[in-house]
Amino acid sequence: MKEEELPHVSTATNPDGDARPPTPAADAPSIVKRAPQMPADKLEGFHVVGKAMAKTDSFTRVTGQDRFADDIFLPNMLYGKMLRSTVPHANLKRVDATRALALPGVAAFASGEDILVRYGILPSSPDEMVMALDKVRYVGDPIACIVADDELTAEEALELIEVEYDPLPTIANMDQALRDDLPQIHENPRRTNNVHKEAHLEFGEVEAGFAKADRIFEDEYFFEGNTHAPIEQHAVVARYGGDGKLTIWCSTQTPHYLHRIACAVLGMAGSQVRIIAPPVGGGFGGKTEPFAHELAAAFLARRTGRPVKIALTREEVFYAHRGRHPVKFKLKTGVKNDGTITAIHLQSWLDGGAYGSYGVATTYYTGALTTVTYKVPAYKFDGCRVFTNKPPCGPKRGHGTTQPRFALENQLDKIADALGLDAAEYRKRIAVDPYTNTVNGLRVTSCGLRECIDAACERTKYADKRGKMRRGKGIGIAASSYLCGAGLPIYWNDMPQSGAIVKVDRGGGVTVFAGTSDCGQGSTHMLAAIVAETLGIDVMDIHICSGDTDLTPVDLGSYSSRVTFMAGNAAREAAGKARALIAQAAAEKLGVAPERIGMANRRAFDLDDPTKQLTFIDAAQLAEAKSGTIAAVGSYWAPKLAAGYKGSGVGPSPAYSYSVAVAEVDVDLETGEIKVEKITLAHDVGRCINADSVEGQIEGGVYMGLGEALMEEWPFRAGEHKIPNLLDYKTLTSLDTPPIETIIIETDDREGPFGAKEAGQGPLNPVIPAIANAVADAIKARIHATPITAEKILKALDASSGSTLRLRKAPVAAPKAPTTPRVPA
Amino acid sequence: MKEEELPHVSTATNPDGDARPPTPAADAPSIVKRAPQMPADKLEGFHVVGKAMAKTDSFTRVTGQDRFADDIFLPNMLYGKMLRSTVPHANLKRVDATRALALPGVAAFASGEDILVRYGILPSSPDEMVMALDKVRYVGDPIACIVADDELTAEEALELIEVEYDPLPTIANMDQALRDDLPQIHENPRRTNNVHKEAHLEFGEVEAGFAKADRIFEDEYFFEGNTHAPIEQHAVVARYGGDGKLTIWCSTQTPHYLHRIACAVLGMAGSQVRIIAPPVGGGFGGKTEPFAHELAAAFLARRTGRPVKIALTREEVFYAHRGRHPVKFKLKTGVKNDGTITAIHLQSWLDGGAYGSYGVATTYYTGALTTVTYKVPAYKFDGCRVFTNKPPCGPKRGHGTTQPRFALENQLDKIADALGLDAAEYRKRIAVDPYTNTVNGLRVTSCGLRECIDAACERTKYADKRGKMRRGKGIGIAASSYLCGAGLPIYWNDMPQSGAIVKVDRGGGVTVFAGTSDCGQGSTHMLAAIVAETLGIDVMDIHICSGDTDLTPVDLGSYSSRVTFMAGNAAREAAGKARALIAQAAAEKLGVAPERIGMANRRAFDLDDPTKQLTFIDAAQLAEAKSGTIAAVGSYWAPKLAAGYKGSGVGPSPAYSYSVAVAEVDVDLETGEIKVEKITLAHDVGRCINADSVEGQIEGGVYMGLGEALMEEWPFRAGEHKIPNLLDYKTLTSLDTPPIETIIIETDDREGPFGAKEAGQGPLNPVIPAIANAVADAIKARIHATPITAEKILKALDASSGSTLRLRKAPVAAPKAPTTPRVPA
Repeated sequence: MKEEELPHVSTATNPDGDARPPTPAADAPSIVKRAPQMPADKLEGFHVVGKAMAKTDSFTRVTGQDRFADDIFLPNMLYGKMLRSTVPHANLKRVDATRALALPGVAAFASGEDILVRYGILPSSPDEMVMALDKVRYVGDPIACIVADDELTAEEALELIEVEYDPLPTIANMDQALRDDLPQIHENPRRTNNVHKEAHLEFGEVEAGFAKADRIFEDEYFFEGNTHAPIEQHAVVARYGGDGKLTIWCSTQTPHYLHRIACAVLGMAGSQVRIIAPPVGGGFGGKTEPFAHELAAAFLARRTGRPVKIALTREEVFYAHRGRHPVKFKLKTGVKNDGTITAIHLQSWLDGGAYGSYGVATTYYTGALTTVTYKVPAYKFDGCRVFTNKPPCGPKRGHGTTQPRFALENQLDKIADALGLDAAEYRKRIAVDPYTNTVNGLRVTSCGLRECIDAACERTKYADKRGKMRRGKGIGIAASSYLCGAGLPIYWNDMPQSGAIVKVDRGGGVTVFAGTSDCGQGSTHMLAAIVAETLGIDVMDIHICSGDTDLTPVDLGSYSSRVTFMAGNAAREAAGKARALIAQAAAEKLGVAPERIGMANRRAFDLDDPTKQLTFIDAAQLAEAKSGTIAAVGSYWAPKLAAGYKGSGVGPSPAYSYSVAVAEVDVDLETGEIKVEKITLAHDVGRCINADSVEGQIEGGVYMGLGEALMEEWPFRAGEHKIPNLLDYKTLTSLDTPPIETIIIETDDREGPFGAKEAGQGPLNPVIPAIANAVADAIKARIHATPITAEKILKALDASSGSTLRLRKAPVAAPKAPTTPRVPA
Repeated sequence: MKEEELPHVSTATNPDGDARPPTPAADAPSIVKRAPQMPADKLEGFHVVGKAMAKTDSFTRVTGQDRFADDIFLPNMLYGKMLRSTVPHANLKRVDATRALALPGVAAFASGEDILVRYGILPSSPDEMVMALDKVRYVGDPIACIVADDELTAEEALELIEVEYDPLPTIANMDQALRDDLPQIHENPRRTNNVHKEAHLEFGEVEAGFAKADRIFEDEYFFEGNTHAPIEQHAVVARYGGDGKLTIWCSTQTPHYLHRIACAVLGMAGSQVRIIAPPVGGGFGGKTEPFAHELAAAFLARRTGRPVKIALTREEVFYAHRGRHPVKFKLKTGVKNDGTITAIHLQSWLDGGAYGSYGVATTYYTGALTTVTYKVPAYKFDGCRVFTNKPPCGPKRGHGTTQPRFALENQLDKIADALGLDAAEYRKRIAVDPYTNTVNGLRVTSCGLRECIDAACERTKYADKRGKMRRGKGIGIAASSYLCGAGLPIYWNDMPQSGAIVKVDRGGGVTVFAGTSDCGQGSTHMLAAIVAETLGIDVMDIHICSGDTDLTPVDLGSYSSRVTFMAGNAAREAAGKARALIAQAAAEKLGVAPERIGMANRRAFDLDDPTKQLTFIDAAQLAEAKSGTIAAVGSYWAPKLAAGYKGSGVGPSPAYSYSVAVAEVDVDLETGEIKVEKITLAHDVGRCINADSVEGQIEGGVYMGLGEALMEEWPFRAGEHKIPNLLDYKTLTSLDTPPIETIIIETDDREGPFGAKEAGQGPLNPVIPAIANAVADAIKARIHATPITAEKILKALDASSGSTLRLRKAPVAAPKAPTTPRVPA
């Protein structure tokens, strides 16, 4: 063929938006059940929502094309290292970098004297310094930062910095923190001890509730602290440009928080600072606040005029982490003989470590959601967080609710046993009803808790197994509920909690600008799916621009299980406005009313006669010719739900997810070793937007719960972390993970985008008590402290048998790996 | 001071938007004059517009922090080289890469057979292949592309590709192209020669006009072809991701055109292709269309799954360029004895080279704007573009109007001399009036031509010098006018020519999304200035996101002097909508009517009582709390101005700029060497948004005009470029550049953003004829062909003196450098 005869194209040619085949749906995972409160008429007609498909960003992730923060290399870049305290508590007498600065290749140094500002993620706890000025408060507390031409030189220079400490007594644990005769970690003239925060709340007639109870149960529990252990260690690159603008690439779940703190700490205008969150290799709450090394990198980039990278070592991540608080509980529950709860009094003591972090919120969270799962007519909560000379704790997946759920579900099983009730049936009987309010003023919308219990029990043949298996084998159930984002914007009143911009290109591509940060949870896909559903196009037609404070609207960030719900609602609103413009143009072209325009499969069509249709591209171009650039803005404000009492801002959420775990275990009565044979998890996700994503989140939550239930520990010796590394810190490998069966329950929440609720955190919470309850079923004895190790099992067995023969040193090893890897259900 | 006593901040703290001092204004350059048609009441109160300041992106540019396309390195990247024809015209018999592919490190190869699609930037000229299939048409025509692990291996592999040509006669020049007995470069059964495009237009009573003329002048002119010679050579990086999406980083002025062509050529959906234009190191029209190497890189990135970079060598840029067409003119003008023009007949012949490029538009442009500068009551235009076996020509700064302006202004001077009129006064007399229409249907709005003439003459003491200096010294004047963007969207009817999104962050930063590409002309700054003025903030508070087809609305690109005008209007509309939301919230807070809210200096205030004020940040936050994310969309459509005849789409513009150059020269009568002593350029820019930017554009235009006037040549020998390198191709260095004085004339155009018109191209056009006219004043003889070399001067001197003694070989050297560099006026 001659060139002159070939097909030709020009810029006038419309690219064909259909050239790429639609993203195929994968095999749907597990069961999808529907709870009765979901309106049936909303179920039909989705073309993206509800399908199971690979996340849109999984392709570049698994092919290694994504660049994480530590993959960023800028010309002339310096590498920074933080000098960290080697003592748990001391006055800082002297920090001398003279010798370090003399080392060839060292470019600059900064210490506490350079940044005389205290900051905090919460307005109530502004107690951190980028680098310590007069005191160090834990082993790992940042003291100084040094930057050099390469990482090894920076490390070598660290060794040359001379630090002189004047040691103070170590506050090593909660008991010491509550004493009045020890020094304060943070000066507080209003106290004589190391209490950070106390909360005392009472709702309903608590004393009367206990008075009318037939039985009262009182127990003590301990939930061990642990850490997020994300695969990606924290990393930051900061560049101070020739234009006086600071750009920070950072592995963060909350780019806009870092933006605000960086501006304030460095004294820069908001318009001069840009935070970019590259893909984040796991956050789990551990990357939700600004870290000292991030601010130090920015400071030294400005000081030197050269880009600065700081990537934490794994050991540093253990210090910096802000993981799960160790919490002690006293739990008192009054019940009628039929199990009806008459009152609960929950007391919690949190070991906060050396700084505030999100600890005030955590304190409230250990009490707030007690009432959202089961009917509690009267409730008293006392919370207390203390400072100790350990790395500060903060939010980890299930923030603040994971620990009390272990206590509550454990005791509930005990109550059922004591009253001769089946633990599952009992939970169904006292489950909260949809669309009710709790005694502490929380508004429940959709609730699929009973459906979760039924589905999990049916799937596991729970009724055939519970109490009916040989000694050593056990089955246990537990339930939980979780937030879909905090109902109050904690920080900036009246701002929308999420904003989104949706732009439609005449070539058929659609861009969504959202201030979220995808920390692996899948927010990129969820936003794409919501917008694709709204506009009737494919998820791969959509480009998500997120995690960039210059390019995206403010969003509080990826925490509190808020992104699909809140950013999703904002994106849906924006896409809906764009859809209206396109539908109007299509309606005019097709000669039908705009409300009769359907949009699906990259077509705009007459709902009554789908043969009357336009391609999405043609419709978008008509709309553009009529209205100009097709772009629209959406915002989401949560309803104002706080009840008004002090602390009432922690707990309210526009909606709550519900999760039920059934654990099946086989305990080796000789060694105490626990083999978790299977976890079945039913989760009320409202509306399932992508079954693969929901399943992934559930599996991740179960996996993390297993680690906390069985092995993760946070041991200190006089303030020194004993195992700050992944060799000694035991957590599950994939081979340790038992089969996990996921059951998705749909309830179509009225507040969520397309009815969706959260799936990222809730499923973790019931796993730990379900295992505890299964172990109790297996060994007829209860373990009141996590992790449930073989040693504790043996102790419990011995205690229940009255024998002391078994009180020998038992193996503390992790459970044996199953012989075959998990095969998806 | 103890840590506990330090000031503290939290995420609740508002960053202070005033922490960064406002960008200081530089010393204002030159004069800013105001033409009478500018309404006086619009002059006051600007706080950004009209100030002279450094471009917002100059800081990162001069500190070397910007990354151009060739600075991008991706992991696992391949380097590509194009195999180019070594013969000007041949049938391609065989392309065999067997030996090349066997070379270690060579990854892949592609040739014409791989991409069987013809494309073209204009719908009327789809005559290009990414790589030749059956014919090569010029030395440099792409035949194949090879990619290898490194650049040297790719170069080595090129040598191993075997190509067999079957030579065809070379069409070496226009005369040959017009012959009927030579082969056609592009098959065209409707013709027997190599004519590409003919245009024949007639407006008014042309014959009658000539009939009533007192004098008729007929002359022939030749304008030499030349090239853009941008500092940055063309470069592209293409990546085909694991998600099936193609990303192309490319030094392009028109990312959205490349997007469309790449989709069509590669058969991909618009949503799957993303074009990113990094900062462009000079375009001047040479980067306004998709190039073969860009499409080849994309194709081979997809074929190999690895990123591919292709950076052209300087020699390749000479082949790929699409520079200024060589044009021959016949110009016939009828005038009354007082100089009034009665009719013009302009004939042009363009040597287009081997492909169409924008040549159809160029053909019309050589005739379209003849009538926009002076009153022409009757006008006939005949244009003809031919194909020759040379690198294709296309648009270069002043696209198509630079060449006829040389002819028109040259002849006009001759007419003035013949009629005994002063050349400047004569131009004033026949200058078009503001707000009139031309005989060929072009609508003139503001026009500061007379003011430009007055200012340039006054500044140069023209009247004291013209015709009054010693032989050898001369002063000359010329005028021109230019488009502010094409009035018609050439490609996609009814789409807005520019779109913009403006987002206001609660921290005081503002982001503008615009599909423009900053090719050094300053569009980034202009958009920032327009939005900063609208919102009352500083230019450095603004982040411009441009040149990214995923992130930005469609914009036709950076050509036709359209960006400040069209994208500026879109950005102004978007910013105006955002301003309205903010002003409304501020008005409510301050208790005044919204129309009484002024915004300047990062404040929103009561215009009647400026002490009643809010910071911009506070006002923006109030607006956000009220309306949600503050973001708005703006679009610009040019008024529909085409008169309806064939070709009437080329020429109409929403507004025209006017420029007057006065050149002062000193010609060495012995050697013919011309020393340009000074260029004074007065430019009617409508409203000057940034005097530094306008001055820079004028200086750049003058600089480029000097090169074309004095030395740039495009010499071929039988189709082979004789000097495809910057050693032999003479163009000015900074030392060759004479003092340039800039005079900015403001006319406040009713269509432009804040009244602005273009400055990027117009100022080049009068420079060349002004020099020609100054030379004529100096030597009393006229040169009818560019460049005006010493050799031509000597010939003209000899011809005018009747002597032949001087017909010896004269030096062709560039003019001597001035002994001191230019000191800014």
